[in-house]
Amino acid sequence: MLRFLDSGESHGKALVAILEGLPANFCLDLDFVNNELSRRQCGYGRGNRMKIEKDKAEIWSGLRGNKTTGNPMSIIIFNKDYENWKEFMENETKDEEKIVIPRPGHGDLVGYFKYNTTDIRDTIERSSARETAIRTAVGAVCKNMLLELGIEIRSKVNSIGPYKDSNMDLFDNRVYERINNSDVRVFDKTTEIKMKKLIDYCKDKGDTVGGSIKVEVKGVPLGLGSYVHYDRKLDGILSMAIMSLQGIKAVEIGDILNKDKVFGSEFLDEMYFEDKKLKRASNNGGGIEAGVSNGENIKLTAYMKPIPSVKLPLQSVNLKENTNVTTRYERSDVCGVVPASIVIENIVAFEILKEILKVYQQDDFNKLKCDIQKL
Amino acid sequence: MLRFLDSGESHGKALVAILEGLPANFCLDLDFVNNELSRRQCGYGRGNRMKIEKDKAEIWSGLRGNKTTGNPMSIIIFNKDYENWKEFMENETKDEEKIVIPRPGHGDLVGYFKYNTTDIRDTIERSSARETAIRTAVGAVCKNMLLELGIEIRSKVNSIGPYKDSNMDLFDNRVYERINNSDVRVFDKTTEIKMKKLIDYCKDKGDTVGGSIKVEVKGVPLGLGSYVHYDRKLDGILSMAIMSLQGIKAVEIGDILNKDKVFGSEFLDEMYFEDKKLKRASNNGGGIEAGVSNGENIKLTAYMKPIPSVKLPLQSVNLKENTNVTTRYERSDVCGVVPASIVIENIVAFEILKEILKVYQQDDFNKLKCDIQKL
Amino acid sequence: MLRFLDSGESHGKALVAILEGLPANFCLDLDFVNNELSRRQCGYGRGNRMKIEKDKAEIWSGLRGNKTTGNPMSIIIFNKDYENWKEFMENETKDEEKIVIPRPGHGDLVGYFKYNTTDIRDTIERSSARETAIRTAVGAVCKNMLLELGIEIRSKVNSIGPYKDSNMDLFDNRVYERINNSDVRVFDKTTEIKMKKLIDYCKDKGDTVGGSIKVEVKGVPLGLGSYVHYDRKLDGILSMAIMSLQGIKAVEIGDILNKDKVFGSEFLDEMYFEDKKLKRASNNGGGIEAGVSNGENIKLTAYMKPIPSVKLPLQSVNLKENTNVTTRYERSDVCGVVPASIVIENIVAFEILKEILKVYQQDDFNKLKCDIQKL
Amino acid sequence: MLRFLDSGESHGKALVAILEGLPANFCLDLDFVNNELSRRQCGYGRGNRMKIEKDKAEIWSGLRGNKTTGNPMSIIIFNKDYENWKEFMENETKDEEKIVIPRPGHGDLVGYFKYNTTDIRDTIERSSARETAIRTAVGAVCKNMLLELGIEIRSKVNSIGPYKDSNMDLFDNRVYERINNSDVRVFDKTTEIKMKKLIDYCKDKGDTVGGSIKVEVKGVPLGLGSYVHYDRKLDGILSMAIMSLQGIKAVEIGDILNKDKVFGSEFLDEMYFEDKKLKRASNNGGGIEAGVSNGENIKLTAYMKPIPSVKLPLQSVNLKENTNVTTRYERSDVCGVVPASIVIENIVAFEILKEILKVYQQDDFNKLKCDIQKL
Repeated sequence: MLRFLDSGESHGKALVAILEGLPANFCLDLDFVNNELSRRQCGYGRGNRMKIEKDKAEIWSGLRGNKTTGNPMSIIIFNKDYENWKEFMENETKDEEKIVIPRPGHGDLVGYFKYNTTDIRDTIERSSARETAIRTAVGAVCKNMLLELGIEIRSKVNSIGPYKDSNMDLFDNRVYERINNSDVRVFDKTTEIKMKKLIDYCKDKGDTVGGSIKVEVKGVPLGLGSYVHYDRKLDGILSMAIMSLQGIKAVEIGDILNKDKVFGSEFLDEMYFEDKKLKRASNNGGGIEAGVSNGENIKLTAYMKPIPSVKLPLQSVNLKENTNVTTRYERSDVCGVVPASIVIENIVAFEILKEILKVYQQDDFNKLKCDIQKL
Repeated sequence: MLRFLDSGESHGKALVAILEGLPANFCLDLDFVNNELSRRQCGYGRGNRMKIEKDKAEIWSGLRGNKTTGNPMSIIIFNKDYENWKEFMENETKDEEKIVIPRPGHGDLVGYFKYNTTDIRDTIERSSARETAIRTAVGAVCKNMLLELGIEIRSKVNSIGPYKDSNMDLFDNRVYERINNSDVRVFDKTTEIKMKKLIDYCKDKGDTVGGSIKVEVKGVPLGLGSYVHYDRKLDGILSMAIMSLQGIKAVEIGDILNKDKVFGSEFLDEMYFEDKKLKRASNNGGGIEAGVSNGENIKLTAYMKPIPSVKLPLQSVNLKENTNVTTRYERSDVCGVVPASIVIENIVAFEILKEILKVYQQDDFNKLKCDIQKL
Repeated sequence: MLRFLDSGESHGKALVAILEGLPANFCLDLDFVNNELSRRQCGYGRGNRMKIEKDKAEIWSGLRGNKTTGNPMSIIIFNKDYENWKEFMENETKDEEKIVIPRPGHGDLVGYFKYNTTDIRDTIERSSARETAIRTAVGAVCKNMLLELGIEIRSKVNSIGPYKDSNMDLFDNRVYERINNSDVRVFDKTTEIKMKKLIDYCKDKGDTVGGSIKVEVKGVPLGLGSYVHYDRKLDGILSMAIMSLQGIKAVEIGDILNKDKVFGSEFLDEMYFEDKKLKRASNNGGGIEAGVSNGENIKLTAYMKPIPSVKLPLQSVNLKENTNVTTRYERSDVCGVVPASIVIENIVAFEILKEILKVYQQDDFNKLKCDIQKL
Repeated sequence: MLRFLDSGESHGKALVAILEGLPANFCLDLDFVNNELSRRQCGYGRGNRMKIEKDKAEIWSGLRGNKTTGNPMSIIIFNKDYENWKEFMENETKDEEKIVIPRPGHGDLVGYFKYNTTDIRDTIERSSARETAIRTAVGAVCKNMLLELGIEIRSKVNSIGPYKDSNMDLFDNRVYERINNSDVRVFDKTTEIKMKKLIDYCKDKGDTVGGSIKVEVKGVPLGLGSYVHYDRKLDGILSMAIMSLQGIKAVEIGDILNKDKVFGSEFLDEMYFEDKKLKRASNNGGGIEAGVSNGENIKLTAYMKPIPSVKLPLQSVNLKENTNVTTRYERSDVCGVVPASIVIENIVAFEILKEILKVYQQDDFNKLKCDIQKL
């Protein structure tokens, strides 16, 4: 069973993950992993932190000569900003410096009471989206392996605020190149301009916006997940993983929120043989039937709330003095949708690989590759 | 750790579940459980099966004199329809009776290939929504316990096809009574009429419709779930559980799909003290911040596709003869949204209780109740 | 991942298990399962309960026409004694009938305080070795499947009290037949006589004895378990399972407690090629190296304490009145070693099959069989 | 749920662990952790590696100002020997340098075939007992926390080869000081001399010896583990953890292998009230009844095989050339029993704390401490 734990505070020394259960004999391309980390750091409207951090993953175990050994893999991303925070992180905060005003929408309030810390800083450091860097690195190892198995994951920004991009085929390489070259990862140039203006507006006002992301996976073999028990359903497993990303508040598999297809006869994906291959007339189900991958592209949409770090003062409370106050501001981005799209690609990669390793060979990558190619 | 396994085929002898990890000393009201089962069987547009089955749960262990003992609980629901299927279920199907034409949207195709069965019947029997009866029973035990802890779960149908009900306060008892008395579990009488007409239309045409469901949980203590690791986030855990329900294709926490609130400053739920109690100006976040319950009502919406058993012939294939054919019809409902609303209430109950038992006393219900009341 | 939950009280209506994760397309021999149940009920020195119960397993789901479908399997064993206890089990005990004197060595004391029950009966009913009947049934399904994969599990009684049987090759069929025909499952006739006399002596005195059991598994493919993470080690996994059996207090893999082999050079199992096959000069390691099966027979010894239900009065306490008293007597066997040997065979079967399904095909038994035979 | 993953090769850059699920607000004493690491490195008969490594744990997250925050803890131990191996570890081995002769008793053979590596080095690096350094660090964090909760874990060497130490009360501080000051962690001076001579003899001959270890835990609250399901039994959980340690081949709870107590009436631990406190006349059961801690000291014995790295040539095979050869020698200790005793103390600490956090408060250490003290 592929699994990982990750640790690390936003301004701590390093983010660390241990990824356990990888098959042996896969040649990892570390540049691929680092490229995913740098894709995550791009995007219009990101804050200043990104100028400080140029994330690089180091792999300290589980590899020899770039080849996986089956041993657990430790992945480290050092936080460059740590040098500026070292003093602070290594000592208990003086009472007068403790953060006691929770920001709505963040983990501040819940962390303060759940863990009985007296300083919201302890929560901020972990609930921060900085943690997604290491999750991206973990997922990127998996994404690299999936690619070698013929499974590819692509994403785009679907909407920012009220502006929605056209639906395009993500596996048309020309389309995808244009999306990847866009600062907001969309296809339409006019939509892009509107989105950027909206982001500029937010930056000026001290406000934030959310949006949505489309992810699509090509080449997934039929049979991942299972309908035989509720906790083995692939759609449930993917939803959990995506919903666990900071800021995501809704997940959609396929095309259910599109109001055009009211009836079963319109929505259901008819099938037929053509040239002896099973084909589908549509893919409204998003590649998953009864919780099992059906061989079509897996299609997901994730919906993200506006980043809860707004400069505009919000009504909040001082938990130490029990008074009503307005919020202080913690450095942040204006819109997290672009980086989130990259993170989700990699989160999905981990989950898909995990499910593959449940059904197929888990010890030797070469045998696994043979098995998948035989399908 | 509260956990369960369930088993049973749609036309098998019985559905069985084992629920493990309940605290001792809780007086279970079996009528409450059976009432949830009969709520699940109601709803406008249900098929004939419901006339055959009047589900009753029997509890064969884990209770003495109606009081939980801490021992695992076995829950049995006998399938009355079994008598008609007995011969069939106990013998291998003759080749000519095997089902080899998969219905789009069902588990038929994926089951056939994943498990290499030669008869789709084996998949139908398990992937069927009949399984939700036993999951409802499992959840109802939890729901009953939650109620005693001051935690209540309510639901309504939000939409069927294009028709949407008004947003109403589910914890206004007069409102909720009206919803529970509605055949389609909505508040607006005009919407109800439109929905029923749509269902009638589908029944005539041999088509089906989907819809959406709102669920709300009141009284959840702050601190369930955790932001410290991705797989402990309450929103992820709930999404997985709800998405695992047959037909659900999207899950929303709070109010993110509502397009009215574009900016962080509009969406975020400001807080303040009033009469020394912490209050919120809104609950767009749906009671979960950073993956942790924040003490507000938890608000979820589930989106369900049209039932994939349509009488209208769809294009499909004969997997034995590799030919293109049209689908056969398997008895089914026209719209599953009403029963799904009840199932989801109970699915959520299991997950919430599971999370409570991670944070608080898991051995003795009386101590647990004390702990929760002290909060 | 193969998994199960089981439930049921000693005098409740039925013992129930759900076994989830079996591959499809295996023809189960239910007689095989029931034969394991009756082997478990034999043995010199068993109590009267065994005359009441002639355990038969019913399988209510997961099979059609005796063939597994991949669906979860529910296994039911009705307790015939239930009819005599029905009244009692369905009602709360009157205060004066509550059991408040814990028997040393049983779960009585710990259950009373952990679950805050006021009646030790609730604990007795579950901590009883009656539960091993259903665990045997679960394991027997697995054992039957393993047999078809060429993996066989055999056991013998190694010692009862101070009397020890000779070490014999369990996979010599003539030897094994004699062991299975022995009332105390040993090979030596003189040892058998001594053991029976000891059991008779105990019965007379109202005392009990323990002993030890040898289990051996033949045909296990190299590669189950893993050294890469501590919780994946096959020896740890097997130890946990065996130690979880009522009365077992020590587990040994291979031959470490034998004092003859002091030095590494004596203990280690040298290897060589003979006729192009890898062979071992000895098997002191018991078929597991670094937590991984090495293709040799897996050899385990389990050590069982005397059954804690002794007729001889022991010093104990009245927990309600806080006084010192002597124990009451609950019907029981004198020596549990013989039935435990059968239970352990089946417990081991479950664990071995679980590990096989982690490494090989988990969906289709026919493919699994091919994969194993190719090794 | 407390959990951890660890990674790292024997000669890799660092051993890394992530420990997740610790309560917040515990003041960790890092010196305590490092002291456990240095206790692990002591012992008569250890190899040269120990002169190179002076293990120090660094904690990179989960702490601020030495206080736990509830965030996952990353623990790092750098391998000083890495500098000498860097070239080697970072590149694939040339064919002629690959190790293809498995050493009996090690993971060499199973790793080669399971992971299809072509170099046994990849297995050696992970299956090595070097990994126990990081597991000791993980456990030492837990042991430190347990101490603050009034729960203490002590151990001694019980035997080395044929020489057995007297049974002494480990919680008599004078006794324990003498044990800790002994090079072989025993009480008897004459036994110590014999053991050392045996170790010297082995060193001369190029052989190795095993032995056994006693561990005892004081202050464990009644109620850890549960009899209600087989996989929740504390004895099973502890056995799994201890058996997973390199070289351990048998685990005993209490005093079952002592042949003195044949009958139930001799073995069972009678109980009585004295000064209103519940007491036991003996503790043959080792503090666990029916898989649940009963408040008495938990007593475990672990049996360790001789270290499989012997200088004396053993018969083995060349897996590349399919020939019979003798083994090569890899640097190692002569007797691992002394360090293993320290590792087991810490392994047990993790498991006991894990079980405590299942039953009691898991979020806030201060509340947990209150709860435990109230018992």
